[in-house]
Amino acid sequence: MINVIKIGGNIIDNPEALDKFLDEFVAMEGKKILVHGGGKEATRLSATLGIETKMIDGRRVTDHQTLDVVTMVYAGLINKRIVSLLQAKGCNAMGLTGADGNLIPAAKRPAKPIDYGYVGDINAADVSDKFLDILLGNGYVPVICAICHDGKGTLLNCNADSVANAVAVAVSRIDETYLTFRFEKPGVMTDVNDPDSVIPAITEESFVELKANGTVAAGMIPKIHNALASARQGVKEVRIGGTVVSC
Amino acid sequence: MINVIKIGGNIIDNPEALDKFLDEFVAMEGKKILVHGGGKEATRLSATLGIETKMIDGRRVTDHQTLDVVTMVYAGLINKRIVSLLQAKGCNAMGLTGADGNLIPAAKRPAKPIDYGYVGDINAADVSDKFLDILLGNGYVPVICAICHDGKGTLLNCNADSVANAVAVAVSRIDETYLTFRFEKPGVMTDVNDPDSVIPAITEESFVELKANGTVAAGMIPKIHNALASARQGVKEVRIGGTVVSC
Repeated sequence: MINVIKIGGNIIDNPEALDKFLDEFVAMEGKKILVHGGGKEATRLSATLGIETKMIDGRRVTDHQTLDVVTMVYAGLINKRIVSLLQAKGCNAMGLTGADGNLIPAAKRPAKPIDYGYVGDINAADVSDKFLDILLGNGYVPVICAICHDGKGTLLNCNADSVANAVAVAVSRIDETYLTFRFEKPGVMTDVNDPDSVIPAITEESFVELKANGTVAAGMIPKIHNALASARQGVKEVRIGGTVVSC
Repeated sequence: MINVIKIGGNIIDNPEALDKFLDEFVAMEGKKILVHGGGKEATRLSATLGIETKMIDGRRVTDHQTLDVVTMVYAGLINKRIVSLLQAKGCNAMGLTGADGNLIPAAKRPAKPIDYGYVGDINAADVSDKFLDILLGNGYVPVICAICHDGKGTLLNCNADSVANAVAVAVSRIDETYLTFRFEKPGVMTDVNDPDSVIPAITEESFVELKANGTVAAGMIPKIHNALASARQGVKEVRIGGTVVSC
């Protein structure tokens, strides 16, 4: 069994929440992989350096300077902070970008209709399950950030959720895999203001209904869509917070 | 046979020199490891961020803010740039700090007589040859920067020459190891202004003489001293540019 856990800014930006999460992560038995997003530090560093942050549909437009910033913050500061904290807790963590060991090749997104700059898209079939298998098999715990590469010498800023999905699909070729998204909500909710409204389970069929009757917030639709795609491609179960998504 | 090559700022700061060096590195046959220093980018970023750079005896005084800067620049920007360039040249590079996989545990240098802040010292006996053996044995090419950790959750800025020496000593426990320092000079010279004055070979005995008669520049003494220590601990040959150092 392999657990892939993805954490985002709400945990990364909060030292106490991060410490608490890492304790839980360390306590998980068996093979495991951590995928992390970026949080606010890249935006903060960009601001300090006088680089304007542009977001379109929640995705960072990544010009050359911004690529340097996210590479420094995600692959350097945050990734190594998490690795050293895990090491201190006795977990043999090992930080990775998608460029390392050619783990996650990505394709630069076409400049049309929207030019996001150095932003990449991933195909789970290209993710090196062989490399992850070697690391996991030898007791190492991969900690992966969402900086990938095009194989031609250029790094690409990718979506951390997409990285988590692709990595989970890749390792599901090795062993039974569970993918969990930890985020700011307790799960997929019918009422964003009511923590008791978490939907316990979503399947292909129920997703059609949820979309049709507008039960879930629009922002959750792609997350559920991608989770179902991962489940179809071999991931045993995807948990969006407390909501279990499966085929 | 394992080759460990260390490059410094004169190559890292010059895109053409870096490209040329990486071509040579890729062409080297057999198992190999690249160790890289920092170059001027950390100093530049510090200046932009309004952080004062303090150097004592050529070593960066590393307060908390400076540690973040060097982690971002060495482990993020430079390490991933080199990895992606090597990948583009068909070399399966894999970037590492000393925290990753607990590769290089370090001890924070005592605050007396000089408080260098988050600066670490390394013992080659602690370097994980096992981890490097797994990577090398599976065809990966480790690219190591000089950010290490204390095992208690704190990253430490280490000297890249020391990292190269310790890594070479560690892998000499696996296989015959050659360590090469590429730097701004063609080798250890008797006259720093005459490139033809490179000393072809230095041994324990000749080093005593060189020190006694002041033939080599003071700055080269610790480099030669450490090279001889590595040779004594198992490294077959240490090349400081064109100068071969051996027991």
